[in-house]
Amino acid sequence: MFNKICFMKFPSPVSIKWIASFINAELVGNDEAEAKGINELHNVQIGDIAFVDHPKYYATCLNSNASFIIINTRADVPAGKTLLIVPDPFEAYLKLVRHFRPFTPSDKMISDSAVIGQGTLVMPNVFIGNRVTIGNNVIIHPNVTIYDDCIIGDEVVIHSGTIIGSDAFYYNKKTNREIHYKKMVSCGRVVIEDYVELGAGCTIDRGVSGDTVIGAGTKIDNMVHIGHDTMIGKNCLFAAQVGIAGASIIEDNVILWGQVGVSKTLTIGKGAVLYAQSGVPASLEGGKSYFGSPAIEAKEKMKELVWIKRIPEIWEKVKGL
Amino acid sequence: MFNKICFMKFPSPVSIKWIASFINAELVGNDEAEAKGINELHNVQIGDIAFVDHPKYYATCLNSNASFIIINTRADVPAGKTLLIVPDPFEAYLKLVRHFRPFTPSDKMISDSAVIGQGTLVMPNVFIGNRVTIGNNVIIHPNVTIYDDCIIGDEVVIHSGTIIGSDAFYYNKKTNREIHYKKMVSCGRVVIEDYVELGAGCTIDRGVSGDTVIGAGTKIDNMVHIGHDTMIGKNCLFAAQVGIAGASIIEDNVILWGQVGVSKTLTIGKGAVLYAQSGVPASLEGGKSYFGSPAIEAKEKMKELVWIKRIPEIWEKVKGL
Amino acid sequence: MFNKICFMKFPSPVSIKWIASFINAELVGNDEAEAKGINELHNVQIGDIAFVDHPKYYATCLNSNASFIIINTRADVPAGKTLLIVPDPFEAYLKLVRHFRPFTPSDKMISDSAVIGQGTLVMPNVFIGNRVTIGNNVIIHPNVTIYDDCIIGDEVVIHSGTIIGSDAFYYNKKTNREIHYKKMVSCGRVVIEDYVELGAGCTIDRGVSGDTVIGAGTKIDNMVHIGHDTMIGKNCLFAAQVGIAGASIIEDNVILWGQVGVSKTLTIGKGAVLYAQSGVPASLEGGKSYFGSPAIEAKEKMKELVWIKRIPEIWEKVKGL
Repeated sequence: MFNKICFMKFPSPVSIKWIASFINAELVGNDEAEAKGINELHNVQIGDIAFVDHPKYYATCLNSNASFIIINTRADVPAGKTLLIVPDPFEAYLKLVRHFRPFTPSDKMISDSAVIGQGTLVMPNVFIGNRVTIGNNVIIHPNVTIYDDCIIGDEVVIHSGTIIGSDAFYYNKKTNREIHYKKMVSCGRVVIEDYVELGAGCTIDRGVSGDTVIGAGTKIDNMVHIGHDTMIGKNCLFAAQVGIAGASIIEDNVILWGQVGVSKTLTIGKGAVLYAQSGVPASLEGGKSYFGSPAIEAKEKMKELVWIKRIPEIWEKVKGL
Repeated sequence: MFNKICFMKFPSPVSIKWIASFINAELVGNDEAEAKGINELHNVQIGDIAFVDHPKYYATCLNSNASFIIINTRADVPAGKTLLIVPDPFEAYLKLVRHFRPFTPSDKMISDSAVIGQGTLVMPNVFIGNRVTIGNNVIIHPNVTIYDDCIIGDEVVIHSGTIIGSDAFYYNKKTNREIHYKKMVSCGRVVIEDYVELGAGCTIDRGVSGDTVIGAGTKIDNMVHIGHDTMIGKNCLFAAQVGIAGASIIEDNVILWGQVGVSKTLTIGKGAVLYAQSGVPASLEGGKSYFGSPAIEAKEKMKELVWIKRIPEIWEKVKGL
Repeated sequence: MFNKICFMKFPSPVSIKWIASFINAELVGNDEAEAKGINELHNVQIGDIAFVDHPKYYATCLNSNASFIIINTRADVPAGKTLLIVPDPFEAYLKLVRHFRPFTPSDKMISDSAVIGQGTLVMPNVFIGNRVTIGNNVIIHPNVTIYDDCIIGDEVVIHSGTIIGSDAFYYNKKTNREIHYKKMVSCGRVVIEDYVELGAGCTIDRGVSGDTVIGAGTKIDNMVHIGHDTMIGKNCLFAAQVGIAGASIIEDNVILWGQVGVSKTLTIGKGAVLYAQSGVPASLEGGKSYFGSPAIEAKEKMKELVWIKRIPEIWEKVKGL
């Protein structure tokens, strides 16, 4: 459904020798190659660097599309690939990301590098970060925050208190560290397509390495949370206090009523409707209505609720057995 | 319980001929009359203009109190009424509303037309829109947003990040448009009565054509969402993360514990108590306690939970049958 | 687990005669003593003042550690204690608290009395109240609000729209008043330890008389609400839209997935995991996984869900009986 934009490409190819030197890695394999970018294991393409620091994922990473693998073991080198051996691949990855995507915070309410379209209204006290692009005829109400690099289409409305582009909730966990969780730097963006409306007090996280996308014409009520790398289709309707975790796909015309919760990395099919307070732990087919936590087809859930009320009647029949 | 204030009255009666000309409508029926205001179908009074664009509602609208009906068909004209025939009644309605209630955004943090009472404290970085009225001895903490025309009583406390008067989540849907949903312009207000306290990060939407009202002495915790046109009584207590959809009535002394969700256009009776995370799909009698999603009387729900745990015991009795 | 800091100690001991005169109380018992501070009944220590205004709690208060008791009845004076008799002990308590902890709001975005560490980045439009202390290498994104007296450790990240130190949702209820609820003044603080990360749009309430604490290395996603006086351990992980009521204890390494709700004054043991949308009405042992509302052990809940689906099969067996 979506054409996922990888956002961690280097401005131009970078010599793998320079990278190895920068992160103090031992190079094993082809040391004359150039890397195109950095990527997460599940998105990685030929020419990219990936990292792996747990034996459980060594094989997956070595057999992936990654051309360059930052790793903490002396593995056999697959044909045509290059290993960069370091004691802590995650720290090496963070060092690279921070170098190529430095955080240079704006000290102005509206960054000089932001581009704002014709007929767009920015009300008082809106923060617009570096390199943000905003289309035409957009209304941004007071006290909105838009982090660096986000893209807002035409005819969008953003109500007060809404925050676009905050970091992904995405951590590397090691219980042998005193502080168990170390944050994965978020290098993706948020892309809001045309005619989207965001209510008051929403939070839309940026992607880790890709984009979080809200499709054209989708309307979102107050206090809705959208996690990192989540892709939302066109003409969806989300009522207040809905929460969607990271990297899920919500196809076109999906309706989520109030306080629905959606778990990560799943797909809700086109035109599905989720009744209020439903919880979605796994992918759902489109074109149907669902209810409950965990959500099942609404008509099945309604039957279940009736069956539960009949347990005392069943007990009356069997208690003498 | 509430005296609903209609907010779309014209400043003075307007000739229906002028209106017909302004929206390019064909006038059928009494063309000498004057309209008093614009209203939604379910609130409409004699002298008002209403619109209807779907055959399903033609009869309801033609038989309503509306004196003037913007419509997309050549219907029989009821006695004493006037039709304004246009191809797209919703667009005509929006054009009228935008003309009589133009959005002229304030470019100041506190609008010159706002009225702020004695002894009221407005902390830094609070946005107060046009024609807002705030009573005496109010405390407004930093980073609060109050949209145009809202009314705040005396002795109110509003914590940081709270947003009062954002637009209703209310759309006209047509799947034959590329963008399915078009927003109904919100012309109502939010009215906060005396001694109300709003926690941090709440959102209170304005009414579509009437008011959203929070009754005197009601106390609201953090991150509570109140939908458009909802009427909340006196001395209610709502814990954190409660959400109430549009046009519902919550009578006096109702207690909603954390994360309760309430659906639209229903009534919760005086003194009802909803336990945490309950979901309310339909009206509830006052004076009782409820639990569950969907919420039922709490003592019934507790029995149900016990019966569910007894299913294996029932199975043991019957499995040999 | 936590060393609860009492925050209502007077700067130096205060003569109980002066206090009695200040609140127009009749002194009964030892009138030469000096009070060390004011405290809530459940926290009170020797030397402290407590108040009681309901016969149900007279005995508890008279037998507590409180040395000085503001009370609305002429009770027998326990040995070594002093009564301060007034018609409305709650009002007297509020008068004392307001005198010793006056609210003197800052009119600057960053108070002159705030202390901000080395390498800390405060982005535009952040409000930092009086006497706030912020450590080194902290990042505070735009539109954050930090109320008076809060303490932020080193290497903390706070995303936009987050509010730290808003008042406790804690009221004294009397239905014979026209306005039923009167707020308990919040005198505690919020203490955020090192390496904590708070997502966008969170709200962390200050303690009533103690502190709300978030332990080192705990990571919190967007729109999470933490109630007053709640103590959160180290290396916890809370996903988006979690809500925790007042005065609960969440021990180290607890994981709460999205939209989990936790009730007040309970304990969740070390390393417990709560699946999404669970509701916690009572304390839970550490080291286990839980699910449901009310939450039970996850494996029991999963079995229950299967048993519910088998009710029609049971009915088939017994319907002829």
